[in-house]
Amino acid sequence: MKKVINTILLWVSTLSSVLPIAAYASGVVYDKDLYQQVIKQTPQAVQLYKNLLSLPNDTHNQEDIKKLSSWLIQAFNQRGFESHTLEMSGSPLVYAERINPNAKKTVLVYLQADGQPVDPKAWQQPNPYQPVLKKQQNDGRWQVVPWSYLTQSIDPDLRIFARSAADSKGPIAQFLVALDLIQQQGPLNYNLKVIMDTEEEIGSPNLPTAIIRHKQKLKADMLLIFDGPPHYSNQPTVTLGARGIATIQLTTYGPYKPQHSGHYGNYAPNPALHLSQILGSMKSQDGRVLIPNFYEGSTISADLKKLLSKVPDDEQQLKQKLGFSVHDKVGNTLQESIQFPSLNIRGLQSGWVEQQARTIVPDKAIAEIDIRLVKESNPQRLISLVKNHIESLGYYVIDREPTHKERMTHPYIVTMKSRPVYGAFRSEPNSLAGNMAIQGLTKLYGERPIVLRSGGGSIPIAPIIDTLEIPAAIVPSVNADNNQHSPNENLRVGNFIEGIAIIASVLNQPL
Amino acid sequence: MKKVINTILLWVSTLSSVLPIAAYASGVVYDKDLYQQVIKQTPQAVQLYKNLLSLPNDTHNQEDIKKLSSWLIQAFNQRGFESHTLEMSGSPLVYAERINPNAKKTVLVYLQADGQPVDPKAWQQPNPYQPVLKKQQNDGRWQVVPWSYLTQSIDPDLRIFARSAADSKGPIAQFLVALDLIQQQGPLNYNLKVIMDTEEEIGSPNLPTAIIRHKQKLKADMLLIFDGPPHYSNQPTVTLGARGIATIQLTTYGPYKPQHSGHYGNYAPNPALHLSQILGSMKSQDGRVLIPNFYEGSTISADLKKLLSKVPDDEQQLKQKLGFSVHDKVGNTLQESIQFPSLNIRGLQSGWVEQQARTIVPDKAIAEIDIRLVKESNPQRLISLVKNHIESLGYYVIDREPTHKERMTHPYIVTMKSRPVYGAFRSEPNSLAGNMAIQGLTKLYGERPIVLRSGGGSIPIAPIIDTLEIPAAIVPSVNADNNQHSPNENLRVGNFIEGIAIIASVLNQPL
Repeated sequence: MKKVINTILLWVSTLSSVLPIAAYASGVVYDKDLYQQVIKQTPQAVQLYKNLLSLPNDTHNQEDIKKLSSWLIQAFNQRGFESHTLEMSGSPLVYAERINPNAKKTVLVYLQADGQPVDPKAWQQPNPYQPVLKKQQNDGRWQVVPWSYLTQSIDPDLRIFARSAADSKGPIAQFLVALDLIQQQGPLNYNLKVIMDTEEEIGSPNLPTAIIRHKQKLKADMLLIFDGPPHYSNQPTVTLGARGIATIQLTTYGPYKPQHSGHYGNYAPNPALHLSQILGSMKSQDGRVLIPNFYEGSTISADLKKLLSKVPDDEQQLKQKLGFSVHDKVGNTLQESIQFPSLNIRGLQSGWVEQQARTIVPDKAIAEIDIRLVKESNPQRLISLVKNHIESLGYYVIDREPTHKERMTHPYIVTMKSRPVYGAFRSEPNSLAGNMAIQGLTKLYGERPIVLRSGGGSIPIAPIIDTLEIPAAIVPSVNADNNQHSPNENLRVGNFIEGIAIIASVLNQPL
Repeated sequence: MKKVINTILLWVSTLSSVLPIAAYASGVVYDKDLYQQVIKQTPQAVQLYKNLLSLPNDTHNQEDIKKLSSWLIQAFNQRGFESHTLEMSGSPLVYAERINPNAKKTVLVYLQADGQPVDPKAWQQPNPYQPVLKKQQNDGRWQVVPWSYLTQSIDPDLRIFARSAADSKGPIAQFLVALDLIQQQGPLNYNLKVIMDTEEEIGSPNLPTAIIRHKQKLKADMLLIFDGPPHYSNQPTVTLGARGIATIQLTTYGPYKPQHSGHYGNYAPNPALHLSQILGSMKSQDGRVLIPNFYEGSTISADLKKLLSKVPDDEQQLKQKLGFSVHDKVGNTLQESIQFPSLNIRGLQSGWVEQQARTIVPDKAIAEIDIRLVKESNPQRLISLVKNHIESLGYYVIDREPTHKERMTHPYIVTMKSRPVYGAFRSEPNSLAGNMAIQGLTKLYGERPIVLRSGGGSIPIAPIIDTLEIPAAIVPSVNADNNQHSPNENLRVGNFIEGIAIIASVLNQPL
């Protein structure tokens, strides 16, 4: 019932302008004027968003990324920017700038345009790049409803499903619409520069070099990142840090080809067993890395503990929702946990399972691992620790496929391919970036947002910050439960609309 | 060069009939008359085999199995049998009998008609049910050649590629052609009954009940099984036992849905870690099961060691071919290894790997295990040992998906689904079945074949033998290196032809 009231309230224009109004996502909004402008803009905003979602953006598909980049350049040019791609290796970095000759400060904005691959079979819609609007039924299932549902009084709990709906085409669409709104009030008093990454989902391998190469052009006083979800309570959030990331792929070997498990079971070495033993030895059952010195440099001081405890996590509820009763024991709380580096098995594959299962000794087994880094982690150091650990188990560790001679010489072989993708960052709350973001949200909501010392996820920000030597803040504008990186990714309509207000309010802060 | 000579020899008809002749697969043949009849029959045999291979036989596809069954019934009816399907649950058991009113003995023959699923992407031909003839090039690759290559002087090293080429449509085609040859010499002096299994690749779940139900009809004095490869040296072989099989599927659980590994890495339990720890704890690095009492009842006595050492294994060469230097340490030799039960991880899956990898904490992890049984293994006992072992690691083990309440109560949960598929068997060399098989091969080759106490693989024979209380022998008729159960399964042409002679010679033994 509360949700219905929220909706109706928004469409009643007789409220006094001094009173806060109910918002679509986060309780109440104090900046009623801005919010009502956003509501008025919603039909155009949804249309722009749908157009953007219809452009495939699998990070591995160059052709798609090229079309997407053209769309972005056109969108910024239409808004008075000068936009083009920056020369670099790999996929293009799309750049846009709007210079104000009287400006004293420059704000650099980071947006992400590419998306994770899709496995269409796992989606409940035919084409993950063809957005659909859905309403949740009483039995919990999501059912497609017509887009006309968004032209009447808006139910903020509807959701738009598509790949990158939240990560991260939602913020791009919200940013473009916010620019349109602000434009109506005259030019900003600062220069605005925007970079749009098209390699984020493969770890932005070419970004550090590109930033160095274009350092002069990208010169700015601060960096704002519109990406990622807010605190999972869906309350307004500013995040002043992010974990970095490194990846490891491990492959173990059995016979050259899968062999009949009857004829060779008990004889041919099983690569799935060896991979299991390697992976299983790295962590305790309750999720602590057992490799010595892995957590070196990361501790939770009494002060930090106090700071982290201000984040209003309801972990009981969170665990009910996620579906487990006991969390990994790296930290005592969720906030403490993400102050440490992590070592996560993100994929495992050997032979075949379920209907496809066949009675063989597999030829190889593959594990994909991601390591999340904190400011105190040196990725090469952690990768070396993992390598040394595997060697200590008796494996011959190489970074390519073994030769026949190596197979005939070493009983236990692991191919380990690793990549330090990018580092972590942390800025101070009273930095230029921290101020602009926190004040923007405070003005919109009438109270200070949740301020996170670091998010758990990674954005390729560390190389930008290190090269440009500026502070940074992340302002999330999508709902937390968006199935990011998974099938059936979505953006809640209420958060889509409110995110426009969030971005507009932050950009509206005087500098 | 030797191979070319072999081929030419066969087409020279001036050889003395008392001299052995070079054979296509196994060195020399003494029963020249029979062998030359087989050669004459080859064009028709290949055509029949191609027709049979063109019928899809994925064990999971009822429609395909039905069409295949009709083909088989027709093939046997054309050869003077009465053939029909036997009433039973699941896929039909195809039955054929040819009764001789003067016969004193009855021979029951077991053939397998269904096949493993196919993953067409992994095959080097467009359709695994569209057989192709291939010749190996100097660089090792197999290249398609026209079928007309089989109408001239035959190169026995050509191979026919298709699903079930070897396992087990090869033996069916060879058996049918052998019947045609024998028919030319007048009726057999025994009754011949044939059962054709269409559920072998899913473990023949309905066979035991069907055998009990049709016990009277299937009454016989012995069982001959034409299935499986010979000793890997490709020499004539009789196998007097087979390991049984049981399967286990293990599933571990993380969050309900895959979660972003940044936001929840170090917090959400990782099911791939837990599965790895469970699997890794079951065996030593060199492949011995560590669960106490797993090998109970299986030992290698001095006498048995001597018997097994008669099998002419060249393990150095075998390991070079298979691609590993150190075999699992269950037995000291391959033959010793397969006298023990095995515990093999045949499949592992969690999240995504390689190009599909995404940075998530997976929602679940699945392992498929097969346990090979020997005569001394009670499958239920071994399954219980595995279950107890997993429980001893602190897991709550159930045989279905956990409920929400269970997720909220038990930190570590495993779903374990198990199935004792069928048991092992072993018959004596001087039994009726052993005699017929060994003598048939001795007559054809002029010397005693390799006699294996037990093969490593499983065929659903134990329930037949237990119910009918008869001895059994397996007579292999395909090459060992046939990629059975894997992509690019094939049958060597020389073995296809010689297998017809093998089956005909065994069936020709007087009873």
